[in-house]
Amino acid sequence: MNFASDNAYSAHPAVLAVLSEANSGAVMGYGADPVTARAEAAIRDLLEAPDAVVRFVATGTAANALVCAQLAPSWGRIYCHQDAHIETSECAAPEFFSHGAKLITLPGQGGKLTPDTLAQAVHVGAGAGLNGGLNALVSITNATEWGTVYTPDEVAALARVAHEAGLPLHMDGARFANAVATLGCSAADLTWRAGVDALCLGGTKNGAMGAEAMVFFDPARAEGFDYRRKQSGHVLSKNRYLSAQMLALATDGLWLDLAARANAKAQMLAQAVTEGGGQLLQAVQSNAIFAAIPKAAHDRAQAAGALYYLWPDKSAEGLDPVPVRLVCAWDTPDADVAGLAAILRG
Amino acid sequence: MNFASDNAYSAHPAVLAVLSEANSGAVMGYGADPVTARAEAAIRDLLEAPDAVVRFVATGTAANALVCAQLAPSWGRIYCHQDAHIETSECAAPEFFSHGAKLITLPGQGGKLTPDTLAQAVHVGAGAGLNGGLNALVSITNATEWGTVYTPDEVAALARVAHEAGLPLHMDGARFANAVATLGCSAADLTWRAGVDALCLGGTKNGAMGAEAMVFFDPARAEGFDYRRKQSGHVLSKNRYLSAQMLALATDGLWLDLAARANAKAQMLAQAVTEGGGQLLQAVQSNAIFAAIPKAAHDRAQAAGALYYLWPDKSAEGLDPVPVRLVCAWDTPDADVAGLAAILRG
Amino acid sequence: MNFASDNAYSAHPAVLAVLSEANSGAVMGYGADPVTARAEAAIRDLLEAPDAVVRFVATGTAANALVCAQLAPSWGRIYCHQDAHIETSECAAPEFFSHGAKLITLPGQGGKLTPDTLAQAVHVGAGAGLNGGLNALVSITNATEWGTVYTPDEVAALARVAHEAGLPLHMDGARFANAVATLGCSAADLTWRAGVDALCLGGTKNGAMGAEAMVFFDPARAEGFDYRRKQSGHVLSKNRYLSAQMLALATDGLWLDLAARANAKAQMLAQAVTEGGGQLLQAVQSNAIFAAIPKAAHDRAQAAGALYYLWPDKSAEGLDPVPVRLVCAWDTPDADVAGLAAILRG
Amino acid sequence: MNFASDNAYSAHPAVLAVLSEANSGAVMGYGADPVTARAEAAIRDLLEAPDAVVRFVATGTAANALVCAQLAPSWGRIYCHQDAHIETSECAAPEFFSHGAKLITLPGQGGKLTPDTLAQAVHVGAGAGLNGGLNALVSITNATEWGTVYTPDEVAALARVAHEAGLPLHMDGARFANAVATLGCSAADLTWRAGVDALCLGGTKNGAMGAEAMVFFDPARAEGFDYRRKQSGHVLSKNRYLSAQMLALATDGLWLDLAARANAKAQMLAQAVTEGGGQLLQAVQSNAIFAAIPKAAHDRAQAAGALYYLWPDKSAEGLDPVPVRLVCAWDTPDADVAGLAAILRG
Repeated sequence: MNFASDNAYSAHPAVLAVLSEANSGAVMGYGADPVTARAEAAIRDLLEAPDAVVRFVATGTAANALVCAQLAPSWGRIYCHQDAHIETSECAAPEFFSHGAKLITLPGQGGKLTPDTLAQAVHVGAGAGLNGGLNALVSITNATEWGTVYTPDEVAALARVAHEAGLPLHMDGARFANAVATLGCSAADLTWRAGVDALCLGGTKNGAMGAEAMVFFDPARAEGFDYRRKQSGHVLSKNRYLSAQMLALATDGLWLDLAARANAKAQMLAQAVTEGGGQLLQAVQSNAIFAAIPKAAHDRAQAAGALYYLWPDKSAEGLDPVPVRLVCAWDTPDADVAGLAAILRG
Repeated sequence: MNFASDNAYSAHPAVLAVLSEANSGAVMGYGADPVTARAEAAIRDLLEAPDAVVRFVATGTAANALVCAQLAPSWGRIYCHQDAHIETSECAAPEFFSHGAKLITLPGQGGKLTPDTLAQAVHVGAGAGLNGGLNALVSITNATEWGTVYTPDEVAALARVAHEAGLPLHMDGARFANAVATLGCSAADLTWRAGVDALCLGGTKNGAMGAEAMVFFDPARAEGFDYRRKQSGHVLSKNRYLSAQMLALATDGLWLDLAARANAKAQMLAQAVTEGGGQLLQAVQSNAIFAAIPKAAHDRAQAAGALYYLWPDKSAEGLDPVPVRLVCAWDTPDADVAGLAAILRG
Repeated sequence: MNFASDNAYSAHPAVLAVLSEANSGAVMGYGADPVTARAEAAIRDLLEAPDAVVRFVATGTAANALVCAQLAPSWGRIYCHQDAHIETSECAAPEFFSHGAKLITLPGQGGKLTPDTLAQAVHVGAGAGLNGGLNALVSITNATEWGTVYTPDEVAALARVAHEAGLPLHMDGARFANAVATLGCSAADLTWRAGVDALCLGGTKNGAMGAEAMVFFDPARAEGFDYRRKQSGHVLSKNRYLSAQMLALATDGLWLDLAARANAKAQMLAQAVTEGGGQLLQAVQSNAIFAAIPKAAHDRAQAAGALYYLWPDKSAEGLDPVPVRLVCAWDTPDADVAGLAAILRG
Repeated sequence: MNFASDNAYSAHPAVLAVLSEANSGAVMGYGADPVTARAEAAIRDLLEAPDAVVRFVATGTAANALVCAQLAPSWGRIYCHQDAHIETSECAAPEFFSHGAKLITLPGQGGKLTPDTLAQAVHVGAGAGLNGGLNALVSITNATEWGTVYTPDEVAALARVAHEAGLPLHMDGARFANAVATLGCSAADLTWRAGVDALCLGGTKNGAMGAEAMVFFDPARAEGFDYRRKQSGHVLSKNRYLSAQMLALATDGLWLDLAARANAKAQMLAQAVTEGGGQLLQAVQSNAIFAAIPKAAHDRAQAAGALYYLWPDKSAEGLDPVPVRLVCAWDTPDADVAGLAAILRG
């Protein structure tokens, strides 16, 4: 019973199937192959963004860091939530790729920035002068690191603040599919129509082996980007194997189907938490649950071999109730979900 | 008929088979999975290096650049051949990862450094002072960018020069399997027994989708390396899919078998070149041929749709004979090899 | 009447005198000159640290950033106060020089870290894994950015926390002289005897034109440092002109004399603030005052042409009382001090 | 008798005089002072470039590296002579500041690039693709590292090649004054009128303590440059002391006067070399002489305590004739020049 992370789970058979189809004959390398062309087009279609520049990499950290470095100079100020993945979980990759850009971290309920908090911080930053660096970028995560989602309107409100200050808006969409599946909106509504300038659209946590799309809605923002990606070792010579994964996910709505499955499992657990006397610490709007569960339930889960993290860290050990993070993947076994749910209900 | 590059070709079915096997159930991420453990052990076994630190990445550029940065500070001097892949073909990735290390490029027949040339350059570098930077690393490629190979004795002679100057020796082994297959030696003989301190062992050009091993024979040299890899976005969260590829290649000698196949195809073409009045510009010791072929043969090949590069660049267009590079992969169709051979023979 | 910053003021005549003495004849460049040798020795003497490695640069930002980069890898976590100069006022130079190290900023009264806060943060960081980066360095400022000072005991307590976690301790001493002058301790007591591993000893704000010393108490920590400094353009070819400034300050206690003068002026203003109904927001322990002064006093001061900053920024305009920062230099005219004091008293 | 380098010599009294004048009262920091304003204006006047952006730093390495990084991305190709200072003598500072830009070094008599060589290299580079990086910048040194000078026409010819390929032209003018003094042209003729886009105008080797001007003739090329300078620790808080040096040199033609003096001394030595049976290895067009002198003359000079470098390195020890570099400064004592001349004549 693994609820530790969605990256603990496997790739969807369709991903391997498209990969196997692509595994035939000779094609030109470094992305000049037909599978890559099809996959890039599929992502553009998915986003209703025919002019967007789409590229693929194998990790979410690379995707975020490359895009941040593309949009912020080394002396740039990048505004993000204090619990943003780019701040907490990428080993300072954005700083490394940008050669020093500073992440200005902001508070916000449920992992979400508010327009007011952002506006105030951007205002302060605008006066930071040479000492403080130059306002450069706003980055949000959707679905957030706390399992919540920004609606298109909420994204648009943040985009307005960013754009009024002359800053582009980046969306870390490692779990973008989960957000879209929850919101029932279009991918375009949640991105460029709401003012997003660059999107990292995750595949890895949603049925791929290791594939992420980086999307620049305005091609002018992607100038030189292929060199940047190459120089960091993130251009695959046999690029078709990366592209095939994203192509599979973008085909017939598989990406949304898988995300919906993961979300549904999370809802089942959320209900069980509540029924078992636990408390949801955040609205459950994607595939992750943050909850305080009775210590007795936690002990039973541990005895049953359930894997998950105490949150935010293991210093929570011994508390009652116990704060935990439970993450569901598209293929978390139904029996495991049911099993943990039963344990949580007590 | 694609002879442009070995990265134009596909992944071996066994690679996909091991991948599919690995695609089941939940495992811990970031390399803490059993497939990765097995794959790392398999590479250590292959190299008879039980204490070596082995890690995987998806591209050869990342492998080389990460290892170079690990072994050279930003003010370091890295000695390599003037046609080394790290100099000509990685978009200054070693400089990027190391934050400025300078590649000191040296001449040498057949893409190979000689001990004398290296010793002289290292001697000059030792006196370069603050202005010139600090001697840091020697890097060689085996098989070389010109299709030749260093023997274990030749590697050892270079290693002696390096070590006497206090420098470690890195081997870019993007086509290491091709070299071993040609030499008939052990992988250990060609690496640590000859004095190699760090090896990049390529899988991508030899039947993988995109997988390379980085090997530090002395674990002390790998200190902090996992952070370095993580910060550059080269740690895959679902690492098993990377590891599975290398595991497949390392199993039952598949890596050597595939390299031998590619080498044999190259020998067939080499013979055809000679028989057809062309001239081999380099000894054909791996899977690449550098030859001057009669313009008539070139024209016939073009008419037949054969893909390959004029070498070193297309300024050779119009010459007679025409200098070309022909690269064979493990799965270049026999019919294509025979077809091009026939054309070359005239 | 300039109370904006101590860097607004001039160089002491003795600094120019030593400079003029040094301006004669030919010497070897890049620090291999006798003035540099004498100046480095003088700093070692001043610190009672005969084995220390001492080097000079022209700016405090360079000094701090070079030392931080020397002591922290790109994936390192550097712990500092949230108002530390390295965080707020150096345009992300530490991140640039270190290629990405992350400043972990901590709260603390009066610009001072407490052992408990530090210990807790270091503990969390120790568990951050690849995602969060590697604990690398603790940095404190003395005198602090809020005009307060750490005593030797307070430094020692922080050093213990750092050292127990295996981390070196850096002290940003842009106003180190002001702290020593206030505390009446020895420079050694406040640094290496208390556990400081590296010190940036400022001259610029204390009577130099532009000169700072970087000191590594353990020479092993300075390995490669001269290359680092050279590569960043911070080795002056005519180094004697940099060294002469520090030599002048280190001679006959001039550095302490000047700092004491500045501190005394600050005390005069502090008293005037209190007498005038204002409130000192921080203990005045060096040459800077942070105070909330009646708006009427502020208006009078403005009318009289007094220059100083509203603090932390100009959003304070219009408040009553008005939070301000007043900084004194060694040569702030007594008449100006008296003049502002009179205005503040009302 | 020091002929080792022009940076071995002292600062002109007028430089110290202007410095002392500037050493009075309080001014705003970081360049917002009247001396800086006057100095920047003086350099613009000197160059007849009223719109140029002018900034100062303390070292030539910083000046060159900052400007190169401003004009080339990390994946850029920078074309320069193989003996360029940026290649041989700056500890890879251009690579560090640019985060990896590759210096493409080209041969050329007398340290000078030719349009043909440059054009060919730029043409190859234009086809280098992602592997080879992006053509970004051409950099020349005037006077060159071999003591020769480019005429305005020669600069213009190189500028045409650069501009036709879309690349800006940078001039490392560490000894720009020496070139102008020799050529008798205007500074404008040798720079922007000939197509130079950015100039590093040296003061350090020409009577300053440590001061260089960086000039962008098109302000658009300087966007963000102040942040870049700040982040690298090269903005002096008491900037007036840097500016005063350049102001002194730019006043009443002092810069040209001092350069002419140094050049004249070099001519005296050159004549002595020839008369003494030695051979000038390069035309003596600035303040440096490269000559092969009889071993007997060398031995006499050594016995007399003359300091200079064997060139290119000390492996020349024992040769007859002995290749040497002799550098004159504005204040190399006439007696020393006469003394060495006598020795050289035999």
